[in-house]
Amino acid sequence: MALIVQKYGGTSVGNPERIKNVAKRVARAHAQGHKLVVVVSAMSGETNRLVALAKEVQANPDPRELDVVISTGEQVTIGLLSMALQAEGIKARSYTGPQVRILTDSSFTKARILKIDEDRMRRDLDEGCVVVVAGFQGVDDAGNITTLGRGGSDTTGVALAAALHADECQIYTDVDGVYTTDPRIVPEARKLDRITFEEMLEMASLGSKVLQTRSVEFAGKYKVRLRVLSSFQDEGEGTLITFEEDIKMEQPIISGIAFNRDEAKFTVLGVPDRPGIAYQILGPVAEANIDVDMIIQNVGQDGSTDFSFTVPRGEYERATAILEGVKTHMGAREVRGDRTMAKVSVVGVGMRSHVGIASRMFRTLAEEGINIQMISTSEIKISVVIDEKYLELAVRVLHKAFELDQVVS
Amino acid sequence: MALIVQKYGGTSVGNPERIKNVAKRVARAHAQGHKLVVVVSAMSGETNRLVALAKEVQANPDPRELDVVISTGEQVTIGLLSMALQAEGIKARSYTGPQVRILTDSSFTKARILKIDEDRMRRDLDEGCVVVVAGFQGVDDAGNITTLGRGGSDTTGVALAAALHADECQIYTDVDGVYTTDPRIVPEARKLDRITFEEMLEMASLGSKVLQTRSVEFAGKYKVRLRVLSSFQDEGEGTLITFEEDIKMEQPIISGIAFNRDEAKFTVLGVPDRPGIAYQILGPVAEANIDVDMIIQNVGQDGSTDFSFTVPRGEYERATAILEGVKTHMGAREVRGDRTMAKVSVVGVGMRSHVGIASRMFRTLAEEGINIQMISTSEIKISVVIDEKYLELAVRVLHKAFELDQVVS
Repeated sequence: MALIVQKYGGTSVGNPERIKNVAKRVARAHAQGHKLVVVVSAMSGETNRLVALAKEVQANPDPRELDVVISTGEQVTIGLLSMALQAEGIKARSYTGPQVRILTDSSFTKARILKIDEDRMRRDLDEGCVVVVAGFQGVDDAGNITTLGRGGSDTTGVALAAALHADECQIYTDVDGVYTTDPRIVPEARKLDRITFEEMLEMASLGSKVLQTRSVEFAGKYKVRLRVLSSFQDEGEGTLITFEEDIKMEQPIISGIAFNRDEAKFTVLGVPDRPGIAYQILGPVAEANIDVDMIIQNVGQDGSTDFSFTVPRGEYERATAILEGVKTHMGAREVRGDRTMAKVSVVGVGMRSHVGIASRMFRTLAEEGINIQMISTSEIKISVVIDEKYLELAVRVLHKAFELDQVVS
Repeated sequence: MALIVQKYGGTSVGNPERIKNVAKRVARAHAQGHKLVVVVSAMSGETNRLVALAKEVQANPDPRELDVVISTGEQVTIGLLSMALQAEGIKARSYTGPQVRILTDSSFTKARILKIDEDRMRRDLDEGCVVVVAGFQGVDDAGNITTLGRGGSDTTGVALAAALHADECQIYTDVDGVYTTDPRIVPEARKLDRITFEEMLEMASLGSKVLQTRSVEFAGKYKVRLRVLSSFQDEGEGTLITFEEDIKMEQPIISGIAFNRDEAKFTVLGVPDRPGIAYQILGPVAEANIDVDMIIQNVGQDGSTDFSFTVPRGEYERATAILEGVKTHMGAREVRGDRTMAKVSVVGVGMRSHVGIASRMFRTLAEEGINIQMISTSEIKISVVIDEKYLELAVRVLHKAFELDQVVS
């Protein structure tokens, strides 16, 4: 008998029929004797509907009042799921974030959780009651309703699991786990049984949008075992995201190939090579709230250097305009932009103890005639930027080169 | 400078455009220097949508969880109205019922207000802030969300006005006040400037559905001056519902003609005339949750009597079935039913001190050949049951006979 926190996203609770299906799934776990806390999102589309309504009233909605409005989405779901559980003959009780209470700071629309009172939940659990909690929301110490920002329901799930010292936090979603890469590109892609937090973070931030980065970080920090499962399949163990020491020695060196399609690259050529140039170039870009991802600066020659970085493709035009100003201001020779870039990464904790990963990656791409435009590395990841037209080919050949299609015995 | 509680119903806040219009109206009162607390309902149709959603999940929704779901309707409106007020350049802050806090008992879906903390509202008002409060909802002492039942937003408005000792509670609706009778039937019907609580209660319970009976009772009990106004007109003082001593001596004897179309009448003939027969007949009807309105029992002859009463027309079939059983059980001769009845009432505190009101009413109806089937009287009201086909005629001739079309100087 375990204490399990289950979290169901908006698609899983998208209509009354699906809510009833979630109730059946919770009922099965309950019948197995587990204590259950269930965290739910708003029904799919509901948060967007509420945000649109708010914007009709106030172009730039007041954050405090926006949180009052959008937090109703999850509140509706908790009531409906509790009803569905009762219809299954199970005692269930719903709580909003403020009712639990999930104490946050006062950063409306992007609040951080400070503290969770678990007494009330524990009392209900001890009575054999399933506790249903609204994700995404909390309350500040003045009693104002707050929300945690997009993906906040995952964070709620992990935070509750941490507060209750739950045995596992199960995130139900529309995929059945984390794959070695996107099966739409590589049919041989395999579901991973286990992956470390560090690897998951690299996979998540690189476009494998299974889990919000923030909730993975949170789970890692508070030692919460996370499991990703499908809410549309009855079978399967999903993927367990856990600690490195839990992973078998036989684990392959590389866990997966992550990629991100929507990249744009800029290179500022002939920049005077002096301290502070990175700030002079990227400061104005950051001020315009444009996310900069990979940054490369080469050693300069003849007192000048070249400076490259990538931004999300949607920001290409805005970034171009900013960089024209920067070029004039700092006397650079030229700004080159390319809006059809993609990033491909190999990820795996195993590369810490294995040499030759980078060279195998580069050789594999070279053999296919794929030109690498930028390279960046971390302890458990090597990323390259390539022309977008080679993306699928690159992912396929790397998946094969690192033998990710082979089932580990 | 006054402290005013304004309440806007679902139609008045039915879409973003209307919410902006409400904000403009509040802004004008604010510009006049008034302190304002604004109570709002859910956007029209929203509560019904949420109830339907709940019933899709659980045929007979759990009351606690139903309140969690339906209370979100008003929560959305308070956020939106606060945004609209801020867009008008006015400081505004929203509160849910639990946030205020409006303490109720634990009768989910029909809770009663026990206590209101006014400190937080007062602090905001003193800062020049408009306070926007969700109607219809509260919280019990265990922290559960409760709702007050249909029309509960009016009750919230009156309760806040009582707690804050407000100068006036203004109920904005889709009519511009209380009329001497329905203008669709009598074009000469006049809007009343003032009416007493007692008269309003008789008018309201007789089908003039301007205000919920419960909120009028509440206002009378706590001495809150109530005003009914249109939220769609910029001009007009509406109708003030107030205390008898505030009404001028020149007030006409009769304030209005109320009526109710959907009545059905039953007469149980040849009932043995002995103690307890009323209970034997009406007990089973009440147990079936059928509202009984007017009840008449005549003095019996030859040891037997006739017993008549009215029920809502929609209950005619159910009541017929019950009465057939009753007839057999108590040995009555016959049960006669008629499903096309209507009730017409003249209402006015003036009739206390004036004789001849009843005879003028009966003579007026007799002159038109309208047969009176049942009569019942209270201190400030005389009601008759007539065939529904005479309803419009009866209302018109009574309106004229009591000179309600004459403007009081």
